[in-house]
Parts: sequence; C-alpha cells; structure tokens
Amino acid sequence: MLHLSLIGIGTGNPKHLTLQAVEALGAQDLILIPNKGAGKDDLAGLRQAICAEVLAGVAQPPKIVEFDLPVRDPATADYRQRVDDWHDAIAEVWQATMAAHLPKGGRVGFLVWGDPSLYDSTMRIAERLRARVGMQMQVIPGITSIQALTAAHGVPLNGIGAPVQITTGRRLRDHGWPEGCDTLVIMLDGDCSFQSLEVPEEVMIHWSAYAGMENEINIAGRLSEVQAEILATRASARADHGWIMDIYLLQRLT
Amino acid sequence: MLHLSLIGIGTGNPKHLTLQAVEALGAQDLILIPNKGAGKDDLAGLRQAICAEVLAGVAQPPKIVEFDLPVRDPATADYRQRVDDWHDAIAEVWQATMAAHLPKGGRVGFLVWGDPSLYDSTMRIAERLRARVGMQMQVIPGITSIQALTAAHGVPLNGIGAPVQITTGRRLRDHGWPEGCDTLVIMLDGDCSFQSLEVPEEVMIHWSAYAGMENEINIAGRLSEVQAEILATRASARADHGWIMDIYLLQRLT
Repeated sequence: MLHLSLIGIGTGNPKHLTLQAVEALGAQDLILIPNKGAGKDDLAGLRQAICAEVLAGVAQPPKIVEFDLPVRDPATADYRQRVDDWHDAIAEVWQATMAAHLPKGGRVGFLVWGDPSLYDSTMRIAERLRARVGMQMQVIPGITSIQALTAAHGVPLNGIGAPVQITTGRRLRDHGWPEGCDTLVIMLDGDCSFQSLEVPEEVMIHWSAYAGMENEINIAGRLSEVQAEILATRASARADHGWIMDIYLLQRLT
Repeated sequence: MLHLSLIGIGTGNPKHLTLQAVEALGAQDLILIPNKGAGKDDLAGLRQAICAEVLAGVAQPPKIVEFDLPVRDPATADYRQRVDDWHDAIAEVWQATMAAHLPKGGRVGFLVWGDPSLYDSTMRIAERLRARVGMQMQVIPGITSIQALTAAHGVPLNGIGAPVQITTGRRLRDHGWPEGCDTLVIMLDGDCSFQSLEVPEEVMIHWSAYAGMENEINIAGRLSEVQAEILATRASARADHGWIMDIYLLQRLT
C-alpha cells in the first residue's frame, strides 16, 4: 500500500517549514524530487538542501531520488489537453520510480513549493495515480508566495471586510481588471502583465521576486512610478540567476 | 526603541508553526496575548498553550502578559468609524501595556491567528502605534485557514490557470456571486451566507470548522445536498464549544 504526503515547504526559506512538515519529511521511506534539467530553475537543488538540513538528525532518513520531469508537448495545440497529457506522463514516471524504489509500497513524500493547493499540479497528478493504484494521500499546508509577499512588504492582503482575487498574468491581460474587486494578487506571470493596465497612476503595486528567499527583491509604489524599475530589475535578476519567480499585489486607489 | 514581531501561528495546530515562528517567539522580551473575556473564543488559552510548548526549552523566555481587549462601541453607527475607533483603543492598550512591562523598549511579539496579512487587524493596529512611537515591525507568515481548509479536504484551491476570490459572508449575501470567477473562499461568515445562493445544486462546497485543530469538522458535497447537514453540524458544534470558526470553498459547476 502506498501513502503519499504532499508537503508544502514554503518559498525557499528553510525556516518557512512548519513543524508538521519537518516531522513528515523525516517519516517518509522515499522522497521524490523532480529535475527539470539544466538551464531551468534550481529548485531541485533547493529541495535537496532542505532535505539535507531537515534530515540531518533523523535516525532512518528516507531515500531521496530525483526523477526527470517530462516536458509538455508543444505539438499539442489545445492548452488543457497539453496539460492533461503532461500530468499523465508525470504520473507514469512517478509510478515507475516508486515501483523501482519501493516495490512493496510504503510512504512517499513530495516537497511542494509554497502550498500544495495553490497553482500547483502535484495534487492533480496524485489523483491520477490514485485512480490507477490504491493509495492514501495527505496534504500538509505550507507558506505560500502570497504570504511571503505580504510579509516582505509588511502590508495586509485585503482591505477591511473587502475581497481579494488571486489570478494569473494571462487573465489580467486577456480579461482586464475583474469587476467588484479592488485588490488582486497576480501569479504565474512571465510577461509583467501589469503593463496592460490602462490607468497605472491609479494602481498601487507591491512586487517581490524570490519572495522569502535570501535574494528577495521588493519594489512598491504607484504603478506609473515604479513599473519601469520593476521591468529593469526583473530582467537583470533573471539574467543573473538564470530563472525568476515573482508575484505582486495590485490595489486600485479609489 | 520598540521592535514588534507579528507572528503568524497557523490555525490552532501547534505543528502549523514554522521554524521561523518558533525562533521568533523565543527571541522576544515580551509577548502580548489579547483576552476577549469569558464566553468568547478560547484563543487566549490556545496562544498560552502554544507559548508554553514552544518556550519550554528557551533559556531566557519572554514575559507573557494578557491584556483585556477593548470592545467595539455599538453606539457608533458607521461600521468603518466603529472599527477605526476600536483599533485606536487597542493601540492605546498596547502602548500602556508595553510601557508598564518594557519601559526601556525591547522586542514585543504578538501571536497572530493564521497569517498577519489576511482578515486580521493586528498589522493595522501596529501601524497606528508606529505613527505615535518610533518602532520597527517584522511580519512572520503563518498557515492560513484557507490552506488548513484545502489540506483538510485534499483539494486544490484553484482550477487550472483559473482565478479564486477570497471574500466575506456579508459580501456574498449583499452582492451575490462575483462575475468572472467560479471559485470563492468565504471567510468571516457568522451567518452561513451560502444559503443566499440561488442555485445550490450547481455549487460544490468544501466546509470546515476548526480547520487544522483537533476537533476539525469537514463536510463536502453539492451545496443542495449538504447544506442542511452543515447548518445542523455548525449549530451543534457552536453550542458544544461555546464558539466556532468556520470557512468554506465554493465552486460553481459550469
């Protein structure tokens, strides 16, 4: 019997780990770490470093195995189909890796960036596997990049009694500012979609790259006044590190 | 000089604490715990229990002081004015308590339920104090009830590439389902506002009370099929415990 633990690890600061996550990491038989290949983000290295730190004092530490993450097939035109196929391919790699390293079953852990519930596919892949092989699943919450962002800037997420929408850069570009909500968190934005906003002088932005990590960068101000600085800083940080992860809070000044 | 740490502690499971929160708790000179008086929630007791557990091995543990939380003045008709006055009154109590216990300044910590950025007034009160007395402020992120909810049910928060709106029970009742967003998280809802939805057969609900705590209760299903059960369970749990904290995820089936 397989038992899967999806363990939220926060956003790169090893001190974001909860006591529950530390305990869960030490209790696994096998920990699987995805490897995206050279030239991608260095999150495999970060996950390895977190494991090394947390498991240093554990008597029977889990076996840690990296697996090559399949890539999405650009030939599949439909976005949803492409993601579906990709999740299937990852589930197959998981299954093969678990069969090789835990033929009799046991506890398998995944270190999930941020929290397993937020813009992450690990839970969906686990559901695919659960449909094929019997297994139990446990989700351990982690600090999200949203909380790392608001903590870095020392600002509340919401206005008093007011709503907040969490959305993507693509949706902001394609659909504009959503009705009836003056506060937005934009994630998964590789294109600085705040540039699509028509009245940047009426919007406050709190922007962070590598939120929660040692090399965290924070810029805040009226969008019209700081957007050029964000664009330049983002391009330069991305060139320096080889990858970037950023997130921002937008507030309409009304 | 005063240094304030607003420390997110998660939603009542002491294992929700991050390593950063544990470290910060031990590093304070003074920890202030609000006391709401008899017949309210027992969160003061929970905060005391968390401190006792975390600080057991600390050589020079902080002094822990409870203070009576002022109440909102129901005579003030305007909601925003009532909240403003209340925050001012709390800032005054903080200032007096700090002056009494830390006359020469030092490090003061607050244990904030969930995360300090999300529907919590501690950061706003701290800003009021900062305007009066010189001080530094640090925010330490914590697991929110949103993450406790999705972890308890083992479900993703968002659809693939889709938005999520975090909002309040009052807004759901007064403004209906927001446009352009099929997933909602409802917080601060003392009135089971899901009852105001017109087509409960087209909505999935994941509801949790005391999410993350030992007495956690989870109910999920089509709203039309489970809403009576949620109402009855909530009323009975509230009567048993004397207080309740609940949260839910709504997904429009489209």
